[in-house]
This record gives sequence, structure tokens and C-alpha cells, in this order.
Amino acid sequence: MRASASFLALLRDNPQESHIASHQWMLRSGMIQQITSGIYAWLPLGLRVLNNISEIVRQEQNRIGAQEALAPTLQPASLWKQSGRYADYGKEMLRIVDRHDHDLLYGPTAEEVFTLLFRTHIHSYKQLPQCLYNIQWKFRDEIRPRFGVMRGREFLMKDAYSFDLTADGAKATYAQMFQSYMRIFHRLGLTAIPVRASTGPIGGDLSHEFHIVADTGESEIFYDAALDSPMSGGGIRERMSDFNGFYACADDQHKPEACPLSGEQLRTKRGIEVGHIFYFGTKYSEPLDAFVMDQKGNRVPVEMGSYGVGVSRLVGALIEANHDEKGIKWPISVAPFAVAIAGLSKGTEDMAETLYQSLLNQGVTAFMMDLDQSAGKKFADMDMMGFPYHILIGSKWLSQGLLDIKIRATGEIISCTPTDALSWMMDRCAPEVISGKKRPGSSEPLAG
Amino acid sequence: MRASASFLALLRDNPQESHIASHQWMLRSGMIQQITSGIYAWLPLGLRVLNNISEIVRQEQNRIGAQEALAPTLQPASLWKQSGRYADYGKEMLRIVDRHDHDLLYGPTAEEVFTLLFRTHIHSYKQLPQCLYNIQWKFRDEIRPRFGVMRGREFLMKDAYSFDLTADGAKATYAQMFQSYMRIFHRLGLTAIPVRASTGPIGGDLSHEFHIVADTGESEIFYDAALDSPMSGGGIRERMSDFNGFYACADDQHKPEACPLSGEQLRTKRGIEVGHIFYFGTKYSEPLDAFVMDQKGNRVPVEMGSYGVGVSRLVGALIEANHDEKGIKWPISVAPFAVAIAGLSKGTEDMAETLYQSLLNQGVTAFMMDLDQSAGKKFADMDMMGFPYHILIGSKWLSQGLLDIKIRATGEIISCTPTDALSWMMDRCAPEVISGKKRPGSSEPLAG
Repeated sequence: MRASASFLALLRDNPQESHIASHQWMLRSGMIQQITSGIYAWLPLGLRVLNNISEIVRQEQNRIGAQEALAPTLQPASLWKQSGRYADYGKEMLRIVDRHDHDLLYGPTAEEVFTLLFRTHIHSYKQLPQCLYNIQWKFRDEIRPRFGVMRGREFLMKDAYSFDLTADGAKATYAQMFQSYMRIFHRLGLTAIPVRASTGPIGGDLSHEFHIVADTGESEIFYDAALDSPMSGGGIRERMSDFNGFYACADDQHKPEACPLSGEQLRTKRGIEVGHIFYFGTKYSEPLDAFVMDQKGNRVPVEMGSYGVGVSRLVGALIEANHDEKGIKWPISVAPFAVAIAGLSKGTEDMAETLYQSLLNQGVTAFMMDLDQSAGKKFADMDMMGFPYHILIGSKWLSQGLLDIKIRATGEIISCTPTDALSWMMDRCAPEVISGKKRPGSSEPLAG
Repeated sequence: MRASASFLALLRDNPQESHIASHQWMLRSGMIQQITSGIYAWLPLGLRVLNNISEIVRQEQNRIGAQEALAPTLQPASLWKQSGRYADYGKEMLRIVDRHDHDLLYGPTAEEVFTLLFRTHIHSYKQLPQCLYNIQWKFRDEIRPRFGVMRGREFLMKDAYSFDLTADGAKATYAQMFQSYMRIFHRLGLTAIPVRASTGPIGGDLSHEFHIVADTGESEIFYDAALDSPMSGGGIRERMSDFNGFYACADDQHKPEACPLSGEQLRTKRGIEVGHIFYFGTKYSEPLDAFVMDQKGNRVPVEMGSYGVGVSRLVGALIEANHDEKGIKWPISVAPFAVAIAGLSKGTEDMAETLYQSLLNQGVTAFMMDLDQSAGKKFADMDMMGFPYHILIGSKWLSQGLLDIKIRATGEIISCTPTDALSWMMDRCAPEVISGKKRPGSSEPLAG
């Protein structure tokens, strides 16, 4: 994409309404725009990140055999009356009356809809287990929407629903989903801490939240300091059993008098909740009549769980975890563009164009800084938008045939020839490298 | 995907509520399920088709330089009061009141939102032209929702919004969008007839609808019989200028007394409206204050157009155009899976598995009919679900080492070896062939 052909929506100053870094940088780099309180439009730059996150979530859900479907945003109130949640949900549920005076609602979650899909089509243990998910807009009428997409009203959620014959089967599915979530956060470049949580309005017996540690997190989490070392150590801890031995609770579950840890053993941190999983047995299948025939010919209610990832919130959480005073530092797995190219002086345009076309031809997402701007302005904008790698073509190109690669995350600069720059980029930004199908290469260009 | 691991939702009988073929086959093949009147969930099989159509629309919109963004589903009433449409839109607009008594609405279209995005960020002729689009769920509270996704209430629309400095520029953009639409319908395997149309609640000076001819269409269209021959002739007519000389009107624009055609020269057909484009000048930019500085330093209202494709309706229209008494015949460009594989007798399982894995490894979307069912049931289900190509492995494999390829569209059967079957499939179903990046091969296997 060329800057000159883009809908660029950069803001020079901090908007008044932004109180945390992610909200500020999303507005300043032109990722989102508020349409009304807690409701945002996603501008082209922001949508690319949102879609990249969705795609990682999709791949990891498909990997464990979950199948993608799509619930409508609006649901009939009758279905929620059947489950008994219509009255419970309170003012966060957006209630709507249509032209025929039928009661609808904008789904804040979709246990009822997916239980309905299940009960219509699945009748035998032979068809189990089943797991459906969708990535769809939800609405919760927060009394005080704030922090941009971190606590918006209309938000994108991945929600999955599992159906098993037995409680043991359902718990095995729960453990599989736990692992899928750890993989998702790992691929996003995030360290997520799984903590025991209360089940709230979803209900059930077993529940974990996944938190990203950040000073701006709205939750307080308490966990065994020993957890930090297995998580930062070599090898990814992703199985639920890796975490079972450690104390880790969200604030609503933490009872200081009952906590086995004290002093330096107990970590207390702020966390951003980016995932929440539930095992709730037959809480929905019984009232909604989702029964199957078991091996003995008995009709039994199906054992269920539900599993949510806050996809739009993750955009904010990722920025909270990856920014500095100049702007965003996107992890390569979700960056809107992997590489930005800037010609910094007259006579560098052809080289910039050649590199841009070469990268595009190889499937690399490249952004061309081709506006008539000072080098300083280009540096500032590339830093703010957070492209992981910048190719800078300046006077050194004209005098010595060398250009600079800048690594946004570290600030490191590498001088090299255009050929070396291309192969260096391919090692890190080729589609199959970013998607994890190929390991990143290690061929470093020689320093100039 | 294996049938045994799928959320299959096939119905044996015609559901009572379906009165047209597309609705019937979408329900019977388990593509959708009604959640309440005019509101559907998309089951895994249906969602794959919906996503394939969206992706073609996306590629063709990107090709003309339009940029993808995403408006929220809910919009503030205040914005529609500013444009003057809040009162006009009537009962089809779903009006909502939130917990703070603010008036919201579920967007039936998004001229106001995109005009707001534009006016916030674009201020100079130097940044023009701009064209943004989104593929997002819309809601129109139809008094009588019917025909499944053809006239649902919650529906998926691609809507684009263009911004030009001058009327001539806007008309050139309009012509470019016209061509993009013809390409989209062509890639979907549909013949769309562009007709002059009234501008309705969107307003404006110039408007075309794109209709798919089908007996079940809700509109009546009148057009020059000569149009049929250029459209079915060699080479694709896709430029607006190719159509300018021909009379073609929707019913609301057709005046028998003013029509220059008569007798056999005038075709009268039923049509399904799948696209609608508008040029409306400054109708929104003036009230919504979307002005830019022109070359002379004057503030001028931007010239706009909007352009819609009914993405979810296209699923129905495609089935209306591609079905028989056995079910759906998907064009390869949108098929949920390109190939189905069925082992029809004991001893064929290994060959079926080998072919399935080989196709998956090459990126072909393959569906494995691995349920314990009779050959007849497998034939019927593959036909109903409409997979373009079926690989049938039966007694001929055990006796002669041959299997059958069945072409769903024509019923033609080709006997060949597994190696020939694989190369035949790659010629037609490889991802780069389906996406049009590579021409379909012509290497036919020898008949067995």
C-alpha cells in the first residue's frame, strides 16, 4: 500500500478523550474513530490488525477441530427467557423492539443460539463431540464505556461452544481449549497468565480467565511468583496441567486469608482480561432441551462449555504491551504491514520503488512512505504506526550503495545492500514465516 | 474436512417455510438456520460460501483502489438527523434506545458514517480521490421477511463510498465501480444485467441496479434483446460504455409509452437485484459538512457515490441460478469444498484417505464422505451439498484400479487412475486456479 493512495488518518496531538496508551495510539495512528460512546469504526490500518488477530484465533481454533459458524448479532428475547437469563442480564443487555412489537436483543454472548443449533441437528452420542465457534460483533451496554476498544460497547468476540456426552469429555475439551488459548496468545507475542475466575452471568463449575499483565489493566490478579519463571523459560508452557500446581486468582476469587502464599511468593499485578473459558455442564442444555441419546439409549442432557476471546480488546492489549513514547511496536504476527519503505532524499525514489515491488511480489505486506514529507516526519509516522521493520534509503545509498534497516522494537539499525535487505526481510516477513509454517531464517546481512 | 468430524445439518425433507429453491436447498444442505423471522445463523457449510463470495468482492474492490474499513453495526440517530434521513427512513429502520436514553439505530446503510470518517480526516483536493468500503451486517426491518437470505432482515452487505473533487471525477469513479461489479459477478459465474434504476431513499442523479435473471426474482426488468447476445458472446462486456447504447430498466423506471423497443426487441424478465450503485453528488457532503479545499483555495463539498452488493443475498441468487432437482451445483469459485471423496465399498478406505490427504496437501478444499452410509445416500448428499467434483471409489477400483470423477454441473462421469484424477483435480481446483491467478489446465485423463 502506498501512503499516497491510503486513507491515512494520523493525528498530530493526543486526543483529549484518550487516557491510556493504547487508546491514544490507536486514535493517533488512525486505526479507529469513535462514532458514538463506546462504538467505533475501524479505519483501514486498524482493520488489518483486527483481521490478523482474527485469523490467528481462527487457525488455532480450527487446529483443535472447532468449526466456524456465525450467529446473527440480533437474537430473539424468547430464547433467553427459555434459558432463564433474560431477566438476569440487567441493563448491559441492549433490548430492542421490532416493528411487529417482538422483543429482540443484541447478543452479548451466544450460549442460547448455539445450544439451539446443536439441539436442532445433533441427536446421538455418535455425533459427539462437537465444537462450534464464531467471530462476531457483540454488544454490552456498559454504563461507562472507556479506554477505547478495551471497554467498548460494540466489540468483536470469538466465542466457542462445546458439546460432549460426559462431564469427563467436557473437561477434556476444556483442557484442549485452554491449550488453544495459550497458543493463540503465544502467537500474538503475548504472555498470558491463566487464573481461576468466577463464572459470573455465564455460570458453571470451572472457569479460567487469561490476563495480559499491564499497569493499565482493570483487574487485579494474584499468582505464585514461581509462575513467572516457567512462563518466561525456554519452551512454551501451554497445557492446563502445566499450571495446575500454581496458585493464580483474579481479584474476585482471591481470599487473602485462604491464600497459601505470602511475601515475595505472591505476585500482585494489574491484568487485562483477554480470554475467559467456562465449563458449565448442563446449565443450558437442560432448560433449552439439548439432549442426546447415549450408548444405552437414554436421553441425556449434553455437557457444555463456552470459551471467549476478546478480539477487538486484544488490539488494545497488544499496544499496551508493545509501545514506547514514539508509538506502537507491532509484533510481526499482527502488524498491519511488516515493512515500511522510505526514500529520504531526491534520487532514492527508484530504489524505493524497486524494493517495494520486490517485496509485494514475494507476498510481503509493504507500506510505501511516498508522500512529499521531510525525513523527520516520515521517521515519526513510521514509528507511530509501528511497522516492525523500516527500510531507509538516504544519502548513503547515493554515495555508498547502502541502505539502512531499522528494527522498530529495538531501535537497532543495520546498514546493508539492497540485495541483503531483501533477503533479510524475506527471512522475517515472508507470509509462510509469519504464519509459522516456516522457521525464521538466520542469514544476517553484513554490516555496512 | 471429514463428514465424521463435521457439524452436518442435512434435512431429509423440504422444510415447510421454504417457497423457493435457494431457501429450500440452503436449509436442506445445512447452510443456514433461522433464529427468528428474517434472522439466520450461518452453519459451517454456509459460512464457507459466504466467505468465498466476500473474498471475491474484496479482491475486486481492492483492485480498483478502494480500501477496506469497517463501520459499526449500530449508529447514533443524531448523525441521521443531520443528513435529514432519520425521519424519512420509516419503519424499515430498526430504532434502539440505550440505557442512557440515547437514540441509536442498526445501520441499514452507512452513507452518514463514511461521510463522517471522510470529513474528519480529509481536507484537501491533494488527498482525493478516496474510496472506502466495508463488508458488514446491516438490518432492515422488512415487514414480511421471506425467501430465506434473499429478503432477510439481518443481511451482509458490501457497501462502498467514494469521494471526488468534481462531478466528472465522481462519474469516472462510478464507471470504474460499474466495471468492478461486472467483474465480481463474472467471477461468481453469474450473468448480471445492469439496468437504470430509481435512486430511492439513497437519493441522487444516476443509479444502476445489477440483476440476475431468475424466475423467482422479485423485480421485473425490461431490456433490449440485443443485450443478451453481447453478454453471452465471447469476451466479457464489463465496461459501462459497453452498455450505454442499450435500453435496460427496472420496473420503476420503465414507462411503456416512452420505451423505444417493442415486440421481440423488448425482453421482460424477472430479476434478483444483487447490486445497486448511486452517484448523488453533494447530497450528504453538504448537510454533513464534508468539504475540501480545491486548487484555488475554495472550500467545496465533496462529490460522492455509494455502491452496494448484497453479499448474503448472492448466496441465494447463486443457488437460484445453479441447482437442479437433486440440489445445489456450486460454481467452483464459491463452492464450500471443491471436491468430495467417497469410498463406496469395503476395501476402498485407504485409497480414499490417500486422495484426501494428497488434495489437502496441495491446498485443495476436499470433503471426505467418511460416514458409515450406503453409496446411494452418499451420492444424494454430495449432489445436494453441491460439491463441483466427486471422486467415487468403488468396485472398479478393486477390480481394475480405476475410479470415477463425477462433474456435478453436467453429470458427466470420467473413469481414470488415481494419478490422473489428482492431476485433473489440480488443473481445476488448485487455489491459484480458483482465484484466477493461473489458467485452468487442459490435461484430461484418458478414459478408463
